[in-house]
Amino acid sequence: MIAIDWGTSSLRVYRLDRDGAILESRSSASGILAVEGGAFAQALEQAAGDWIASGEAPILMSGMIGSRQGWVEAPYAACPAGVEEIGKALREVRWKNHRAWIAPGLSCRDASGVHDVMRGEEVQILGVLDELGAGSHRVCLPGTHSKWVTVSEGRIVSFATYMTGEVYAVLKAHSILGRQMSGEAHSEAAFADGIARSADGTGLLHHLFGVRARGLFGELDDAESASYLSGLLIGHELRTAAGGARFVNLLCTAQLGALYARAGSALGIQTRLFNPDAVTRGLHSLAAYLPEDA
Amino acid sequence: MIAIDWGTSSLRVYRLDRDGAILESRSSASGILAVEGGAFAQALEQAAGDWIASGEAPILMSGMIGSRQGWVEAPYAACPAGVEEIGKALREVRWKNHRAWIAPGLSCRDASGVHDVMRGEEVQILGVLDELGAGSHRVCLPGTHSKWVTVSEGRIVSFATYMTGEVYAVLKAHSILGRQMSGEAHSEAAFADGIARSADGTGLLHHLFGVRARGLFGELDDAESASYLSGLLIGHELRTAAGGARFVNLLCTAQLGALYARAGSALGIQTRLFNPDAVTRGLHSLAAYLPEDA
Repeated sequence: MIAIDWGTSSLRVYRLDRDGAILESRSSASGILAVEGGAFAQALEQAAGDWIASGEAPILMSGMIGSRQGWVEAPYAACPAGVEEIGKALREVRWKNHRAWIAPGLSCRDASGVHDVMRGEEVQILGVLDELGAGSHRVCLPGTHSKWVTVSEGRIVSFATYMTGEVYAVLKAHSILGRQMSGEAHSEAAFADGIARSADGTGLLHHLFGVRARGLFGELDDAESASYLSGLLIGHELRTAAGGARFVNLLCTAQLGALYARAGSALGIQTRLFNPDAVTRGLHSLAAYLPEDA
Repeated sequence: MIAIDWGTSSLRVYRLDRDGAILESRSSASGILAVEGGAFAQALEQAAGDWIASGEAPILMSGMIGSRQGWVEAPYAACPAGVEEIGKALREVRWKNHRAWIAPGLSCRDASGVHDVMRGEEVQILGVLDELGAGSHRVCLPGTHSKWVTVSEGRIVSFATYMTGEVYAVLKAHSILGRQMSGEAHSEAAFADGIARSADGTGLLHHLFGVRARGLFGELDDAESASYLSGLLIGHELRTAAGGARFVNLLCTAQLGALYARAGSALGIQTRLFNPDAVTRGLHSLAAYLPEDA
């Protein structure tokens, strides 16, 4: 089969064997925002046209490709949801003589009735259900919009999104704080300082200004300022999102995982890292819900 | 005398009589960021050259004009500070045969030792000390960088800055949240919703994503999204910054004051509004510390 992880800024295609093992993979910058005029079929053929022509099937996708800005909108399935609920909500697309299916995202409401949504992460989680095993688990998928997911007995019960990565990027690029930041160097000491600062009950909006004030007094240089801001934001995320959990499963790249592991360690939270390639196992498990002739 | 409030984005000049009453005032967009090549003397003469030529004196300024990016840097005075400490730290500038003085900003450190700074707001506060009277007072100067100031027996004891206004502007202009916002219309119901949401203990970074999720589900339209975000941020600021105070003095424009008064009211905090023209009274009170021949 062909498994596709199609997000906002990147497209990853995988050729899987009957058991879900990865035979071949490719990735490109053809995220849905880079595809013009709705030419998704062409973009897909550019990435995996040879596999499709050779009859590799079925074709199953997840991620923002199923959003309103994607190929077709695959409406959110409601939590709690496991492989069955997601598998039954797959949405078909056709072009030329080809067919493919898109996984829906998930939605939930929190205790205050406020909605939350995810698209793509739910399939990554399906891919680690076996490793997680029975019982209840906290899974964090850090990133632009970090997802904190509660999994229980193989189903996604609820989740909450934290805008950590985007707030970091936007403040660095467009706020007064960015003027004292340059380069990509990481300062572990400043990152740890930021995490420690997030414990003070004076609020994130105040802590943010401290980046500037400490810079003015020469306590943070250009590299340290960015690391301190990162620690502040990740610290705030972890403290509120972990909700007292002493063990959190991370599902992300090794680099981001190392950052969250160190932040967790500073807060007394143990972490375990899963590989985000889990999305292929998730898509493989969803293939069981396709029509016989897919 | 000539009293000058010279900030990042605007320049306000006032001609005052011997008792500090405003005889005439002018304002322009010649904030320090708009002045090129350090031509501050020219910018000042453009705004008040006729007053200066006619011998109006002394000339006293406050605001970002005393920052590293301004005319000359007037180093921060340390809290606690009243009119005497600020008056003794005035910094002189000369050009042609003219002299003028710039008020220093203030700095302080919080319980965790983290610095905070203000420039300009401290002189506005000097201008309302008489009205505030004896005892302890909480004064909030809302804005791009909201200042929360504790005044006791006529001196500024400590303060904390909240990046509320800048975070709002940056998220609206540059984040995914801004895509669902347009126009300047205000929705009072959405603003109130945002304030209510800020009470949930799930953290600002999560509440921010709720703007998007609620938009996706049609619960917030373009005008409502901006007002909801505004309520969220002001709600977070007020809850943490007020620190249990049931009465807060506001020092800002009537429009911003009305917004903070409504937010305060929703949180059981009474407010009283002072006019930011108080800066002229503050500068007038500082004139007592100038040399005799100023």
